[in-house]
Amino acid sequence: MKPEFGKKETNLKKALRLMDKATSDLLVLPELFDTGYAFSSREELAALAEPFDKSETVSELKKYSRETKTVVIAGIAEKDKGKIYNSAITILPNGRKHVYRKLHLFYKEKLYFNRGNGPLEVISYKGMRIGVMICFDWIFPETARTLALKGANIICHPSNLVLSYCQNAMVTRCLENRVFSITCNRVGNEDRGGNSYNFTGFSRVIAPNGNVLAEGSKVKEELKAVDINLKGAEDKRITSLNDIFEDRRIKFYNIKGKK
Amino acid sequence: MKPEFGKKETNLKKALRLMDKATSDLLVLPELFDTGYAFSSREELAALAEPFDKSETVSELKKYSRETKTVVIAGIAEKDKGKIYNSAITILPNGRKHVYRKLHLFYKEKLYFNRGNGPLEVISYKGMRIGVMICFDWIFPETARTLALKGANIICHPSNLVLSYCQNAMVTRCLENRVFSITCNRVGNEDRGGNSYNFTGFSRVIAPNGNVLAEGSKVKEELKAVDINLKGAEDKRITSLNDIFEDRRIKFYNIKGKK
Repeated sequence: MKPEFGKKETNLKKALRLMDKATSDLLVLPELFDTGYAFSSREELAALAEPFDKSETVSELKKYSRETKTVVIAGIAEKDKGKIYNSAITILPNGRKHVYRKLHLFYKEKLYFNRGNGPLEVISYKGMRIGVMICFDWIFPETARTLALKGANIICHPSNLVLSYCQNAMVTRCLENRVFSITCNRVGNEDRGGNSYNFTGFSRVIAPNGNVLAEGSKVKEELKAVDINLKGAEDKRITSLNDIFEDRRIKFYNIKGKK
Repeated sequence: MKPEFGKKETNLKKALRLMDKATSDLLVLPELFDTGYAFSSREELAALAEPFDKSETVSELKKYSRETKTVVIAGIAEKDKGKIYNSAITILPNGRKHVYRKLHLFYKEKLYFNRGNGPLEVISYKGMRIGVMICFDWIFPETARTLALKGANIICHPSNLVLSYCQNAMVTRCLENRVFSITCNRVGNEDRGGNSYNFTGFSRVIAPNGNVLAEGSKVKEELKAVDINLKGAEDKRITSLNDIFEDRRIKFYNIKGKK
């Protein structure tokens, strides 16, 4: 979708209108789907972010989830104890929710948001083992790797991508971890407060073998649905003799770096 | 190149003939370039592998390196203390050499070769900080990550790729680590001992920003050269506010897995 900056009610309504056409077990919305992206100050962000227990958006999504039996994942600016996170909430039909706070902030997000305080967790529900990451998290291979090693079979990835690399890189993320991924990326542009962002759309659902199962428009708002057989993520073998989790040579890896 | 199985002298001569057309600081040959790939038994491999201090191939490459002032990296089957490794030797013009033994064996290599015994190291020479990995190592993001965090600015990657994923994935490996890469992949096919391998060629030199700087044929033998400014790998920033090494949130990563 293409959120309009600052118009939370409009954006929520638009999302619900799109969602009403869906019949699915799992639905992913973009990052910051109800506020837009191009904040120009911490104050402006603070006025739009909400504690999730008092958020109209969260309460409407919970209602949708309960009524349609859909797991909903949505990127929303979250206020908590004086901090503001770029978060993704996962809402289960049974009322349970899980919050992931973006670990790797992109560009000016660093000026306005607080960094996520983890951990990276897997949410289990009816055979789905959902790992959540947000937008720029993709460029750090450790993010998807950690989720996959914790058992995720599907990585849900609300995004506001402005660079053009990620949609292709997600093929590699799926291959190297033998997981499904859903990157839901917004479209449109925002030009305000001296910043100009062109969001690249081109949402993608990708299989553990790297096949692209569904692809969204680069410019248009739309809803896409695809059937997935999650069993595809259980077998980590890429040949009869290569299980890519078993084959890892952990003692030779050093991802801590020099510091 | 397209090695002929078992014909070490022929393959070496062919490689030297191609190399004679080069004027370069760094030259990469494919994996197992002088033996071919489709071994059908440990014994057959043992008859072709050599200790590097008694190898005619290594001694010819050393001569080439010294005379042309070229760093040469070549994949060769290595015999050492009763073990046989799928190795890549790095030969410096000053006579120094470094051996990397493939950590992640692919498919039937597991039946014939011993697993590499590390470590992943960086070889420094005249501004080059060379990391070496071999073929299937690519699918484990920790391999290139470890090399890059140890300071590699260029990852050299002799290959005998049969799957088609790697050449695209190397774009991601370069982007996520802001390094150059040279994947030198053989062409042709080998059909022997009940195994049939079609090697995918399509060698690639890729820049830290993901740009493909040179591309080899999918079927033909050829030599490709490209000028690289290694400074491109020193700056790990992808935006003015994002240094992708500094931005890593190490304490939230768990790459050890459940075991």
